[in-house]
Amino acid sequence: MNDEVSSEILEATYRALCEHGYAGLTMQRIADESSLSKGTLHYHFDTKEDLLDAFLDELIDRFESRLATETTDPRARLDAFLDATFAPPQDGGDFPVALMELKAQAPYHDAYRERFVEVDQRMRSEVARAVREGVEAGDFEDADAEEVARFVVTAINGSNVREVALDESPTETLGLIETYLDQQLGYSPEVVA
Amino acid sequence: MNDEVSSEILEATYRALCEHGYAGLTMQRIADESSLSKGTLHYHFDTKEDLLDAFLDELIDRFESRLATETTDPRARLDAFLDATFAPPQDGGDFPVALMELKAQAPYHDAYRERFVEVDQRMRSEVARAVREGVEAGDFEDADAEEVARFVVTAINGSNVREVALDESPTETLGLIETYLDQQLGYSPEVVA
Repeated sequence: MNDEVSSEILEATYRALCEHGYAGLTMQRIADESSLSKGTLHYHFDTKEDLLDAFLDELIDRFESRLATETTDPRARLDAFLDATFAPPQDGGDFPVALMELKAQAPYHDAYRERFVEVDQRMRSEVARAVREGVEAGDFEDADAEEVARFVVTAINGSNVREVALDESPTETLGLIETYLDQQLGYSPEVVA
Repeated sequence: MNDEVSSEILEATYRALCEHGYAGLTMQRIADESSLSKGTLHYHFDTKEDLLDAFLDELIDRFESRLATETTDPRARLDAFLDATFAPPQDGGDFPVALMELKAQAPYHDAYRERFVEVDQRMRSEVARAVREGVEAGDFEDADAEEVARFVVTAINGSNVREVALDESPTETLGLIETYLDQQLGYSPEVVA
């Protein structure tokens, strides 16, 4: 599968998830959001689960690329992490709802669970690394990097639920995390979108 | 509807949700978990949504009753709150998964959303009140009660997701919250189940 086809399928999956949710997602509906036929989708992906596994993998890659920053400054790395995490979705669709439905499927689909575990570890290691390096450089006060990272990522997980279940803006949690980091590390983010 | 019938219907709903999830929940499956007929269920509840609204209301009542404590000591109130929140579910079923599916339905069902907003406000006010009273009594260090409450409840929301999506024990988040409260308030819980 060339990159263009792959990209088209995954964009179509995003739109179909926003439109129909996980429960209403079918290969036909994904095909309807693309210029490809259902047969072409099945040629590349045996099952809906296989396609969603590739979709989650692509989401992780995009998250990684948003994390990429030229700076090695620990504060700027934390800023970049919060920017990447709290960036508004690429459109106004119901993607947070679909993502929560997918998480609720994790107990029944090992492939999804592995992806969610992978992104969780990636997020925690990114925060922990910035905290550790900031403490070592003397930029931050002494702190338990793993614990700070776990708390920040757990709050982000909570923010996702609150957006869907309570219609609360994620900026509420972003503010809490900034205050928490400030208290833990003597850290104040300069600019957070 | 007498209390016994009400209780039987809501217990059956709990079991049917654990067994089939939200997507697989039908009036027939709830009836199958009880001694009542589907017709009797429909006599009491016009729709599945009405029944689930009553079910969420009952969950809130039970949570309230677990919160009830004779003590007015702010530390003991926070202990009671954490005990009630992190108490293991009443059986080994998949209730956390069903609850997350229900939360993902909140954007489409005002009745569910109102219940989730209600329980969120109840949780935050319980924590904020204990923090405020503890600060006023000099038991705790000075702290922003609303902010502490919001952060604790957001972490609890995150814990629910992590249990379902990552198969992580909620005791991980409980430990983070205890450390956070200790740092914020000079608070150490005495006994947490």
